[in-house]
Amino acid sequence: MPVPDAATAVPDPRGTVMRGEIGEIPDAIEALLASGQERAEGAAAAIRRARPGWLSIVARGTSDNAAVYARYLVETYLGIPSGLAAPSVTTIYGRSLAWRGGMVLAISQSGQSPDVVGVMVDARRAGALTMAVTNEPDSPLAAAAEVVLPCGAGVERAVPATKTYVAELAVVAQLVAALEPASDLAAALPRLPAALRAAHEAGAGWLVTRDGAPSALVAELAASDRCLVVSRGYNYATALELALKLQETTGLFADAYSAADLQHGPLAIAGPGVPVLAIRADGPGGVATDEAIAAVAARGARPWIIDGTSRAGARTLAVRQALPEALTPLLYIVPGYLLVDAVAHARGVSPDLPQGLTKVTRTR
Amino acid sequence: MPVPDAATAVPDPRGTVMRGEIGEIPDAIEALLASGQERAEGAAAAIRRARPGWLSIVARGTSDNAAVYARYLVETYLGIPSGLAAPSVTTIYGRSLAWRGGMVLAISQSGQSPDVVGVMVDARRAGALTMAVTNEPDSPLAAAAEVVLPCGAGVERAVPATKTYVAELAVVAQLVAALEPASDLAAALPRLPAALRAAHEAGAGWLVTRDGAPSALVAELAASDRCLVVSRGYNYATALELALKLQETTGLFADAYSAADLQHGPLAIAGPGVPVLAIRADGPGGVATDEAIAAVAARGARPWIIDGTSRAGARTLAVRQALPEALTPLLYIVPGYLLVDAVAHARGVSPDLPQGLTKVTRTR
Repeated sequence: MPVPDAATAVPDPRGTVMRGEIGEIPDAIEALLASGQERAEGAAAAIRRARPGWLSIVARGTSDNAAVYARYLVETYLGIPSGLAAPSVTTIYGRSLAWRGGMVLAISQSGQSPDVVGVMVDARRAGALTMAVTNEPDSPLAAAAEVVLPCGAGVERAVPATKTYVAELAVVAQLVAALEPASDLAAALPRLPAALRAAHEAGAGWLVTRDGAPSALVAELAASDRCLVVSRGYNYATALELALKLQETTGLFADAYSAADLQHGPLAIAGPGVPVLAIRADGPGGVATDEAIAAVAARGARPWIIDGTSRAGARTLAVRQALPEALTPLLYIVPGYLLVDAVAHARGVSPDLPQGLTKVTRTR
Repeated sequence: MPVPDAATAVPDPRGTVMRGEIGEIPDAIEALLASGQERAEGAAAAIRRARPGWLSIVARGTSDNAAVYARYLVETYLGIPSGLAAPSVTTIYGRSLAWRGGMVLAISQSGQSPDVVGVMVDARRAGALTMAVTNEPDSPLAAAAEVVLPCGAGVERAVPATKTYVAELAVVAQLVAALEPASDLAAALPRLPAALRAAHEAGAGWLVTRDGAPSALVAELAASDRCLVVSRGYNYATALELALKLQETTGLFADAYSAADLQHGPLAIAGPGVPVLAIRADGPGGVATDEAIAAVAARGARPWIIDGTSRAGARTLAVRQALPEALTPLLYIVPGYLLVDAVAHARGVSPDLPQGLTKVTRTR
């Protein structure tokens, strides 16, 4: 992949389709929170009736990262043991599972991937409560599920999913808030659109210097071929999604780790010359991420810290945060996406049409 | 990390501690299968009594890859929905889950990590069936679990876990075989030690040329700073474990993907100059891996295929395989470990004492 001189490449002032869609996120989420409330209440009632003993979430690609968010949210707010399904058991090995007594939640932007649909069909047949979060309410996935929660994000033209990812997270947050109406999550949800606008504005400021040149952050990532993204708790999903988008859109070897997993082995790949992005919201997950920040710094890396607040002595990318930690994954990915777009541009690749990626991926 | 000229570096003929321990794997597993049968029957009886509706597996690092294997085996052979636990929910966010009605299986070589122990304590208190697979039957983890299945792998002196990983897989396979005594898995288990010896011998042949120089495979990996490892189904665990060991032992940025996930985005990081290792057992998971092999080849990569049989026209590393696909993860990782040891040596690092890694990692 050609890497132009990052110090001289300048982001396209006309912007990309991807960048335009990132800018649409706050409005899309505001509209979803208004239109989706009734459906979220209905889905919450279905869950209260079914009283599932556990939750299995099935998804692929970007939506798999939304699934990681969903599992943390469901476990911490609802106390229901949750995990991610392995579709190959159903579609490659042809095994039906004893899904009865549980709930299966499928998350898919397109609602098309045969493996995700296959699990949903198997789970519904076996008697599980089945629910689909999708941007395509007319898709095969929506037809397979008992309950459908649309993302309502409108058409997404850029191949990398951005607005539909945040919408998937928002649908899940709205559902959990409907089940726990007295929670800090439910109380904070109405403040989300304004916080998304502030996060978008913060991120735009990370990309260029006052002279309009790529910022040190963009230049460092554009000139690298490897990078680490770490976090823990709710924002582990953000780390995974940011790394995935860097991979698929810029070709960078970006690896995401939970702060704990990093210390169980992969820390050896950190060091000078390997950029590190740490996602650190104010809250228990952020505090736990500090251990990883210290560990990579001890190996000579100088991490960039996407943080709730600005901190002296660190390369902090502050995102003004007046929301519970559980909602910060929706905020933090927005400047993250802007960063991905800028790094792709600085590397001379089009973020709208990344190599090797199609809008609808049909794996079995 | 210093990378010596891979074409001239020669593996240490005296061998490393890690290499010695890899050589001990067949005997260790043979002893385990003999000594562990009664305990496996007892654990199987406990599962039949409890009839758990679902299984949650908790582990970190290398054992997390054993957990991935366990979830596929339990789902395909027992039909019990399974997933991997997120310890941070318990230990970082302090949330107790409604574990009753399910089973929680912890896998840990040392049995020491506070987060793994914390989940086990919470799950047992809540009324789940709790079971621990560990090489340390006197550890805090073993004390916390209702049922303990020892790995019996003896002392492991090298920091990277090899023999205990295969032993963890063998304990899980023996347990599943005890629950499904009429399965191909149960029938094949006695043939495992001989197959492990053959796999070890095959792997030793991958490392050096007839002249004693590093093989093209070792030289290619030693000269790279990035690499992809892909598989699907049972051997997705093998891909994860091989990538993790390459990371922690050689410092290589090795990324593991399921063949399906690769096509949902990260394929963009494949191409000429990025070595690809594909794990392809004979069986449905192997067939599904062929899609990923074709996809990376279309992007200019020339994958090395660790395969059940030798195939014309491909860079095949054949492992003679007379076992069901479900047991091949135990075989295929053995030559994989020998490869890691050789690549570390060719890169001038000691596999016995990798940077940034300790034998017992205590994350909370």
